[in-house]
Amino acid sequence: MKKIAILGSTGSIGTQTLDVVRANGDLEVVGISAGSNITLLEQQIREFHPKFAAVGDEVKAAELRDRVKDLPVKIGSGMDGMIELATMPESEILVTAIVGMIGIRPTVAAMKAGKDIALANKETLVTAGHIIMPLAEECGVQILPVDSEHSAIFQCLHGENRKEIEKLLITASGGPFRGKTRAELENVTVEQALRHPNWSMGHKITIDSATLVNKGLEVMEAKWLFGVDLDHIQVVVQPKSIIHSMVEFKDGAVMAQLGTPDMKLPIQYALYYPERRFLAGDRLDFAALAQITFEKPDMDTFLGLPMAMQASRTGGSMPTVFNAANERAVALFLAKKIRFLEIYDVIAGAMEAHKTIADPTLEQILAAEQETYEWIANRYKMGE
Amino acid sequence: MKKIAILGSTGSIGTQTLDVVRANGDLEVVGISAGSNITLLEQQIREFHPKFAAVGDEVKAAELRDRVKDLPVKIGSGMDGMIELATMPESEILVTAIVGMIGIRPTVAAMKAGKDIALANKETLVTAGHIIMPLAEECGVQILPVDSEHSAIFQCLHGENRKEIEKLLITASGGPFRGKTRAELENVTVEQALRHPNWSMGHKITIDSATLVNKGLEVMEAKWLFGVDLDHIQVVVQPKSIIHSMVEFKDGAVMAQLGTPDMKLPIQYALYYPERRFLAGDRLDFAALAQITFEKPDMDTFLGLPMAMQASRTGGSMPTVFNAANERAVALFLAKKIRFLEIYDVIAGAMEAHKTIADPTLEQILAAEQETYEWIANRYKMGE
Repeated sequence: MKKIAILGSTGSIGTQTLDVVRANGDLEVVGISAGSNITLLEQQIREFHPKFAAVGDEVKAAELRDRVKDLPVKIGSGMDGMIELATMPESEILVTAIVGMIGIRPTVAAMKAGKDIALANKETLVTAGHIIMPLAEECGVQILPVDSEHSAIFQCLHGENRKEIEKLLITASGGPFRGKTRAELENVTVEQALRHPNWSMGHKITIDSATLVNKGLEVMEAKWLFGVDLDHIQVVVQPKSIIHSMVEFKDGAVMAQLGTPDMKLPIQYALYYPERRFLAGDRLDFAALAQITFEKPDMDTFLGLPMAMQASRTGGSMPTVFNAANERAVALFLAKKIRFLEIYDVIAGAMEAHKTIADPTLEQILAAEQETYEWIANRYKMGE
Repeated sequence: MKKIAILGSTGSIGTQTLDVVRANGDLEVVGISAGSNITLLEQQIREFHPKFAAVGDEVKAAELRDRVKDLPVKIGSGMDGMIELATMPESEILVTAIVGMIGIRPTVAAMKAGKDIALANKETLVTAGHIIMPLAEECGVQILPVDSEHSAIFQCLHGENRKEIEKLLITASGGPFRGKTRAELENVTVEQALRHPNWSMGHKITIDSATLVNKGLEVMEAKWLFGVDLDHIQVVVQPKSIIHSMVEFKDGAVMAQLGTPDMKLPIQYALYYPERRFLAGDRLDFAALAQITFEKPDMDTFLGLPMAMQASRTGGSMPTVFNAANERAVALFLAKKIRFLEIYDVIAGAMEAHKTIADPTLEQILAAEQETYEWIANRYKMGE
């Protein structure tokens, strides 16, 4: 039995991780967590019998404890609860399926406790890659990417020498607004932005796909994960998301991983790496597929990508500001407080206002996040 | 220094192997051979200073000896010369860049002498895969494919567990006549058949591309090389030859190797495996590429593929007959003795006339080849 803990088991990646567990007889879920969805968390506790579950706050925790008092499960809450989950002696691997910088501390704690990380929490590497990657090496733990693009690159690199990489080719669907001009994007609605052509995902990441911020975050993450600088990372738009990403090597060979858009593949690959298990689901049918098309990303319209590159080149605390500003900007857009293109304005404003700290500590990263949140709160009002 | 011997150094693969040697400082050519082109062989001897060179017959050998009498190179001839080349104590790896079943005996001799094989001689595995593969294991030598499709699959499988293969996806350009009907192929000329859309290769293999016999031979070769049965090998037409081939695994992931059409890549990969060295040449430009298209192969028009599958399923000596009949049929077509579609008739006739020998010895394989040659010679006259 391989024992896993899942940070964020009620979200998109979390529930699909549990689908993978259901389909395999030798995975045991020892711990799970949710922010506030205790109804689903209760169902998951009853189905998977974890020893521990964490929720966002003590009020929810008390309610959940009452609901599952018939079961031998311990309930924790807040950051302490997440860290207890992450460091459970029973677990071998932590799936970080949570969105946001809130995932960083539990991830660090898990690594220090010797757990491998199945990483779906982009923010961890985007904001603290300079701390996380050396720490993984120091702790002797593996960081196994769960994102489809990074998993594809990870699969392409399996068995290869990373010194022989020429460049990473990260594919992008281009999102629901691919091909549109800035003028056409002036008045797009939240509903339009949420219609991703290929992938069914959470709201935040779907908006990030539409702005290309998500692709920018992926570039930043790839830089740390694979130790490749930005000049050797290229984004290629490939609207159908058939090729999940590619690696070009020094000899000119390009290795690619292709598949149907099913997150269970990268999840299962991370959980069993380097073994490949049978996975039920659709298979690519090349005769039916007819074609794979490629385009350059439109960096003049979709500023998420060039702004991310700029943040990454500046480095230090700037990627944190980019990420935190985007997080709030997306929330403002989803709340219909700002228009689509204003997401870029919010990010640009926050980045401009920030004084970069080189090589920040975890505390400085979290402070930069807070500072960005406050800067935005002073300019844009939420929840009114 | 890595010491290599090249069987067939004056042909397409042979000369490109020497290009790879020129570009790398640590490859030493210890032996080369040619059938009859002693002018080029002499140039190669003067440039690469091999210790030994073999030519097709003793008349040519005598002439070459006279031409290079100022150099300390030994010249051999015929099958004895090829076997001496293949088993040279100085060499570590034999590149079998020769066309035809004439390559089998030297390949076997090289393996028995402990040499790795960079295999570009398709006939070796097509006709004697059941002998060659166990022998490679017994001798502890590697068979490194040089064909672009097999190299692609070999690259996709590097680091992977072969038990986790679901299927091999061999890509095919479809050749110069892709999309044509049988009626349209009635009167195509030799010149038209030699116009391959992507690859510049020898005449025989270019015609084999047009008939899809080449793809059939590749399927048969892949079956032995990777230990995958025909039901798990699929041919996908992909006209631009960007994807050199793919492997689908049990989890649904498809790994692919892409590149420009440059045989130096698989040659160099085989010579340095598993290392990837810098290789000068064009790189894929996905933005410029625009698209990769896929089609099903037209098995009703291009009978080379289904006939090869039939020969492979029958097994035993039948693949030898398929290959030998095709060899003569192509020669008849190139000599304008038969029309394009008659190539299939010649092969079908020879296969029908043959009584299959199960699990044939090398002698029986060579006898089946001879028998096929004679059967065809009795029906079609060459050289008149």
